[in-house]
Amino acid sequence: MPIRLDNATTDFASKFKAFLAMKREVAADIETATRAIVDDVAQRGDAALLEATEKFDRLTLDAAGMRIGEAEVEDAVKACDPATIEALKLARDRIEFFHRRQLPKDDRFTDPLGVELGWRWSAIEAVGLYVPGGTAAYPSSVLMNAIPAKVAGVERVVMVVPSPGGTLNPLVLAAAQLGGATEIYRIGGAQAVAALAYGTATIQPVAKIVGPGNAYVAAAKRLVFGRVGIDMIAGPSEVVVVADKTANPDWIAADLLAQAEHDANAQSILITDSAVLAADVERAVASQLITLSRAKIARASWDEFGAIIKVARLDDAVALANAIAAEHLEIMTADPEAFAAKVRNAGAIFLGGHTPEAIGDYVGGSNHVLPTARSARFSSGLGVLDFMKRTSILKCGPEQLAALGPAAMALGNAEGLDAHARSVGLRLNQR
Amino acid sequence: MPIRLDNATTDFASKFKAFLAMKREVAADIETATRAIVDDVAQRGDAALLEATEKFDRLTLDAAGMRIGEAEVEDAVKACDPATIEALKLARDRIEFFHRRQLPKDDRFTDPLGVELGWRWSAIEAVGLYVPGGTAAYPSSVLMNAIPAKVAGVERVVMVVPSPGGTLNPLVLAAAQLGGATEIYRIGGAQAVAALAYGTATIQPVAKIVGPGNAYVAAAKRLVFGRVGIDMIAGPSEVVVVADKTANPDWIAADLLAQAEHDANAQSILITDSAVLAADVERAVASQLITLSRAKIARASWDEFGAIIKVARLDDAVALANAIAAEHLEIMTADPEAFAAKVRNAGAIFLGGHTPEAIGDYVGGSNHVLPTARSARFSSGLGVLDFMKRTSILKCGPEQLAALGPAAMALGNAEGLDAHARSVGLRLNQR
Repeated sequence: MPIRLDNATTDFASKFKAFLAMKREVAADIETATRAIVDDVAQRGDAALLEATEKFDRLTLDAAGMRIGEAEVEDAVKACDPATIEALKLARDRIEFFHRRQLPKDDRFTDPLGVELGWRWSAIEAVGLYVPGGTAAYPSSVLMNAIPAKVAGVERVVMVVPSPGGTLNPLVLAAAQLGGATEIYRIGGAQAVAALAYGTATIQPVAKIVGPGNAYVAAAKRLVFGRVGIDMIAGPSEVVVVADKTANPDWIAADLLAQAEHDANAQSILITDSAVLAADVERAVASQLITLSRAKIARASWDEFGAIIKVARLDDAVALANAIAAEHLEIMTADPEAFAAKVRNAGAIFLGGHTPEAIGDYVGGSNHVLPTARSARFSSGLGVLDFMKRTSILKCGPEQLAALGPAAMALGNAEGLDAHARSVGLRLNQR
Repeated sequence: MPIRLDNATTDFASKFKAFLAMKREVAADIETATRAIVDDVAQRGDAALLEATEKFDRLTLDAAGMRIGEAEVEDAVKACDPATIEALKLARDRIEFFHRRQLPKDDRFTDPLGVELGWRWSAIEAVGLYVPGGTAAYPSSVLMNAIPAKVAGVERVVMVVPSPGGTLNPLVLAAAQLGGATEIYRIGGAQAVAALAYGTATIQPVAKIVGPGNAYVAAAKRLVFGRVGIDMIAGPSEVVVVADKTANPDWIAADLLAQAEHDANAQSILITDSAVLAADVERAVASQLITLSRAKIARASWDEFGAIIKVARLDDAVALANAIAAEHLEIMTADPEAFAAKVRNAGAIFLGGHTPEAIGDYVGGSNHVLPTARSARFSSGLGVLDFMKRTSILKCGPEQLAALGPAAMALGNAEGLDAHARSVGLRLNQR
């Protein structure tokens, strides 16, 4: 049974607040264990990495065996269903098309004093891409992480993927090839994150690590943050569907379940001004649930975290959607654009009944790596800028220094930083 | 005595590698203590915050007394030297001018299939700005953090600044007013970070926290990361000066010392192809050091971390500068633009002899919050984008869904996510 809220009830505000504060994931206390693995790899390199792989992935390798070579990738591609490969290629092309538009422009300008200012963007040289093993190994995620890096101009895109017991998903290797990964290693867990951050004899270090992983991977990313860059720590996924009576309840139910099937901690929320629609959606969810192969996961998610929020007027949904700050926001109303214009906090917006989130997950072209668990209040989905950095540029001549120098000296002196003031004063032949 | 390296020596590569790996800061093991403070404020709110302020800042306040009101700010402004206020205003105007150019553009476009795609940028609603107390309270840093937030459109810019024993730097309050801070509280430490992240009865929570602080502040920011956004964890500052025989050794020495006076862990590095210049700079540093009010700090930094790297040819300095990835890179050569064009990793570049870093620290207009300790390899200085987030937009009609749907279904099925496939199939009247 999903959570039911109604903003016509008097205690709605406090109930909604409690709903927002609901924890869907308990942070495991694994930092000590993770730190031991990370430190061991940092100190002993390949030897520690291979031992951890033997222990956690039940896989005995030597240093040379960690690398997945081109021949192995080719064999994997041949083992895949050609129709799926074609679908991946379509996805690849569309993701690339979308992300090319995100390439930022450099700027250089001269202000009224004649000071030259500006900035220059450049790609990060080497990036690590973590890909989970097992059931969470999604080839689509490989594309979503690798392609923005390639579009940004990253030279080394180093993918790591654990192969527990030696098993690898061939589609993941196919996606790595299509996405342009430049190196692939069959390692995972905190040990792979450490290898990417510190480097080993076999694996050159990278400057940033992206991609989802389990709690150990997330903890390891937190630990190496600062030495290398990391992306957001991914939390459980969620969708909010805002709908009015014009929407199709079967379609909404299908979208809610598409979210719920990811993970028992996923969250699917319907906000509607129509009590009839709410009831129809709830019935449709129950009837569609039965036939899913991942029914158990989807049911756990829907029963514990699913929610139907009834609002008096559709406009009331704006503030709720902004407070929830959903990773995915689907708008199925008579005028979805009008509603979307009022939304400030959302990872991605899907407009109208013919834009199920699954299109965006795979082939829309926009990125499916999006801020989860209310983090859309302060962060964005993955994009080209995550693989670039900006260098600012400043250039004064003698006249500009003469114009700005006295103020800089005043501030340096006010902050008690004489050497700052003097570095200007010397050039102005003062003091 | 600074470190001396010469790329004409046979062991240069290994010595440079060791130089890069040198740790300038030992991470204190204070996470447990910090976590206790953060958890206490998260649970008990104002009461815990006031107790921690009494304990750590020796300051007894009630909840209402935490807020610094407009009258107190006005009084502080009146207590400041008017010339310094004018310098802050010049800085404010120039920082605003520079950062306005960073405002990103939204995008919306239709692809050849008729799919509508795009993204929209919006400001984070509320941001916390941590300002250190004591000697590290720099009014210039208040401007550098607050102004990009205001330019981005952040409504609430909530400044916290500890006042140990009740002492506050009036210039910090003046800068807060000039920078547009909307609320100011006289609290600091891990307890202030927790209050900003979790909110208390007195302080509404924010969505992101920026600004430098001591080890406890940094540890607290790490702990609340995910619940709120944070900026980079600032490390010790550094400058690299690349110079040839055309450069003025006194000016270089002054710039090296301006960096060194910040902190005993700061690092000042000269890279030059001129042995004569190297010797002249070293002498000039020694002679200028004596007269600095912060001579003890500057000397500690120069003696332990200062470095002079002699290269055979100026072009050899490019790879070294990129490997060091300095926060600040000054180029004083016959053709600084030519050298700068080859640099990939640097927080900010200062071109030519008339652009001392101090101009950029105060009044150049570019941001002085820059990536330290080699993090310019993967991150950028603070800017307007740090206070905004991007929402992606996707819109299909029936025809676009028909065109893309089969590929999305193929990938959903290949990933074992039936409900994803069905959310598309239902709309296409399949299964």
